[in-house]
Amino acid sequence: MKSNLDLINESDSFPYYEDNPGKYIKFRSSYWEFHLRGGSGPHGYMPQYVFERFAEMPWVNAWDIDFSKKTLTPGPGRQEDIIREELEQAKKKGVFEVLNRGWRNELYPIYGHNDPSEKIISMERAGSALFGINSYGVHMTVFVNTPEGMKIWVPRRAKNKQTYGGYLDNTVAGGLSTGEQPFECMIRECAEEASLPEALVRSNAKPCGTVSYIHIRDERAGGETGLVQPECQHVYDMEIGADVIPKPCDDEVESFYLWTVEEVQEALAKGQFKPNCALVLLDFFVRHGILTGDNEPDYVEIVSRLHRKLPFPTS
Amino acid sequence: MKSNLDLINESDSFPYYEDNPGKYIKFRSSYWEFHLRGGSGPHGYMPQYVFERFAEMPWVNAWDIDFSKKTLTPGPGRQEDIIREELEQAKKKGVFEVLNRGWRNELYPIYGHNDPSEKIISMERAGSALFGINSYGVHMTVFVNTPEGMKIWVPRRAKNKQTYGGYLDNTVAGGLSTGEQPFECMIRECAEEASLPEALVRSNAKPCGTVSYIHIRDERAGGETGLVQPECQHVYDMEIGADVIPKPCDDEVESFYLWTVEEVQEALAKGQFKPNCALVLLDFFVRHGILTGDNEPDYVEIVSRLHRKLPFPTS
Repeated sequence: MKSNLDLINESDSFPYYEDNPGKYIKFRSSYWEFHLRGGSGPHGYMPQYVFERFAEMPWVNAWDIDFSKKTLTPGPGRQEDIIREELEQAKKKGVFEVLNRGWRNELYPIYGHNDPSEKIISMERAGSALFGINSYGVHMTVFVNTPEGMKIWVPRRAKNKQTYGGYLDNTVAGGLSTGEQPFECMIRECAEEASLPEALVRSNAKPCGTVSYIHIRDERAGGETGLVQPECQHVYDMEIGADVIPKPCDDEVESFYLWTVEEVQEALAKGQFKPNCALVLLDFFVRHGILTGDNEPDYVEIVSRLHRKLPFPTS
Repeated sequence: MKSNLDLINESDSFPYYEDNPGKYIKFRSSYWEFHLRGGSGPHGYMPQYVFERFAEMPWVNAWDIDFSKKTLTPGPGRQEDIIREELEQAKKKGVFEVLNRGWRNELYPIYGHNDPSEKIISMERAGSALFGINSYGVHMTVFVNTPEGMKIWVPRRAKNKQTYGGYLDNTVAGGLSTGEQPFECMIRECAEEASLPEALVRSNAKPCGTVSYIHIRDERAGGETGLVQPECQHVYDMEIGADVIPKPCDDEVESFYLWTVEEVQEALAKGQFKPNCALVLLDFFVRHGILTGDNEPDYVEIVSRLHRKLPFPTS
């Protein structure tokens, strides 16, 4: 059985400098830094072997590569185009499983770039983990207050889903593409994944903060491992009546269960939830006074670990 | 007028490694590390000038002082006694203003020490900032849902309070002494500071997480400056009816106001709140969907900065 801190450690697996500076620096320096031209710091971390596979292609266009500092930066030209071409070439040559299997034609934003002519740089979603950029999403916990206490709607992911097939999930979740507002994204995902009507969501969904962590991708996610995924999920709560029943709409969800808090906690401890969804539920339990400083010995650590500062600019 | 991010920067003023590693390391190395015997890492940061003033006394008993690593560790004997004697000597000699003015005869805990014979080490509260240890507290926001919307009970600190006299505060707040449970501490503070009856608090106060940050003390706090204060506040919400009126009980609070969210936001922007209390209110606004990813450009940064991982062990 996993403790709540075990669940955190699985998703927030990138080391912290202050826990052990020497170990952190050694680990960190095994990654290349992805920079943007004119920027003042990194926007992503890339594993050595990923860098080498790109380098074997070889790198399209003019990238500025500094072997002593281990930095890579798009050279002259529109940076977004250079990144896109690089990823398309890699896909065509079948270099990375995450591109072969996961290409979505969906763009993820990179914020905090100083060049006003390219204020937000976009990157194909499937490539984001290779470059290790921050990514953003929305996750909602839908619950019902019943005479027997609070119950939570829990979907099971389709067995054949590329990542974490068969795992339990948050009621509704999705990635935030470039230009999308979190609330509007949530409304769209509610319709697509759970057949929840827009009017209901618009009046009942409540934004409640974010959950953030830096994940190092392992085999359960499918594709390359060791990839760095700094993620920030905008979290929403929605209380609904017993008469509203979420239903799968697309083929991503197999079925929905209505579970008590205890049933959810048991499934968490058994490791049945997709790791980052476990974090969203722990945050829900903290905000609703279910997990407290009086009943959870690791409470102080858990609450801060649920809200890690992302390593790259967020706005 | 201060932005919400400005308010965060005031309380969470200790630099982050990842924002600028070189600057961080330079700043960090200007502090001495306070260690415990048998421990595996620091438990506090002490400014150079504080170390020097202790050294001029000179240090009582046998402290192990490593000038190359800039670490200080209690030597043989009961560590808690060595620390207490050191602080008592300093108080007697009038070396530090925070001890002269702020001695409370109240013990704060230091967690995460490995020696089973001294599982939790305690230190006089007034000395905690000199050694730069983690400290813990409880903060509650009491609110009323009225026909004109949500209103929040806001106290003004007594003008003659040692720290932040005349500033606005959270409805109820206090420090967590060694051995105190957060919820019981909150109940006691509610009676002492706001005359709120125990039965009401016990059934209505809801634990909602923590707010944490690393503050570098400036002149507004009174006493020495440059002291490091890593703090974790257990936060509570309590909704009460319009018939319950908080009243000052001890001499720490001058008066209570019942303000709309807009009035609270205006006072925040004018810098009228005690800095760490501003953070508790921002967290309240985030959890209640008042501050969102759609209306606050710095939302992602703000939510993580409200929950900084403390630099020393918490349990």
